[in-house]
Amino acid sequence: MVMDLSEFNFRHHLGGEELLTAVAQDQETGEVLMVAFMNRQALSLTLETGIAHYWSTSRNKIWLKGESSGHQQLVEEILVDCDADALVLKIKQEGAACHEGYYSCFFRKVDFEDGFKFKIIREKVFEPEQIYGEG
Amino acid sequence: MVMDLSEFNFRHHLGGEELLTAVAQDQETGEVLMVAFMNRQALSLTLETGIAHYWSTSRNKIWLKGESSGHQQLVEEILVDCDADALVLKIKQEGAACHEGYYSCFFRKVDFEDGFKFKIIREKVFEPEQIYGEG
Repeated sequence: MVMDLSEFNFRHHLGGEELLTAVAQDQETGEVLMVAFMNRQALSLTLETGIAHYWSTSRNKIWLKGESSGHQQLVEEILVDCDADALVLKIKQEGAACHEGYYSCFFRKVDFEDGFKFKIIREKVFEPEQIYGEG
Repeated sequence: MVMDLSEFNFRHHLGGEELLTAVAQDQETGEVLMVAFMNRQALSLTLETGIAHYWSTSRNKIWLKGESSGHQQLVEEILVDCDADALVLKIKQEGAACHEGYYSCFFRKVDFEDGFKFKIIREKVFEPEQIYGEG
């Protein structure tokens, strides 16, 4: 059965793909964990399996989040914005969202007092080398 | 003085612009209010003024959020993700974020029980005709 995705608006044309934006938000705390893109296949797989799949714009392929780390995202709810080109995935994050070892990819803030430099404001929850190997 | 934005990664090439993704999140409740894009000028204006400016990918122009409605976004904090191509703006929203009259643009959810149709789950906080006129 082909899934009817006609209500969704894949209007962002990036690298030859038609994409929408997806924000993964911790279901319990509301913390934003990552922002990525989805094409139709990534959204279909996410809806079918309940596990977040994205389109990797750097590797140009379907990306099952956590495919190498095991840090998958279980989707509890999906919100849609007014023009249907952005989603909020309310998720339960296994492990941590960020490949750099932080629970959220947003582990830095812009320091307005110091020339808009980036400042780390979170603690690591794992060491990347132990999950992904040394290289 | 030209602002140094070299740490930011405007890597999304859309409609001839180099953009990063910006998520506006209610500073107090953590509710995600909207998702949009910024080019260098939009980010500079946001950093300079403390009021959210975006790049409108539909109108191809700088977009001071709330320029017609008065519903501006006061930026309290900006978080940056691991590859510096996405921001979370922690904001205080004047009025409401959505031009359709809802506090958040994410006023619908995907109904997993009903063929993935969209279902409105929020109440309007204003009537668009009263803010923007009849058209």
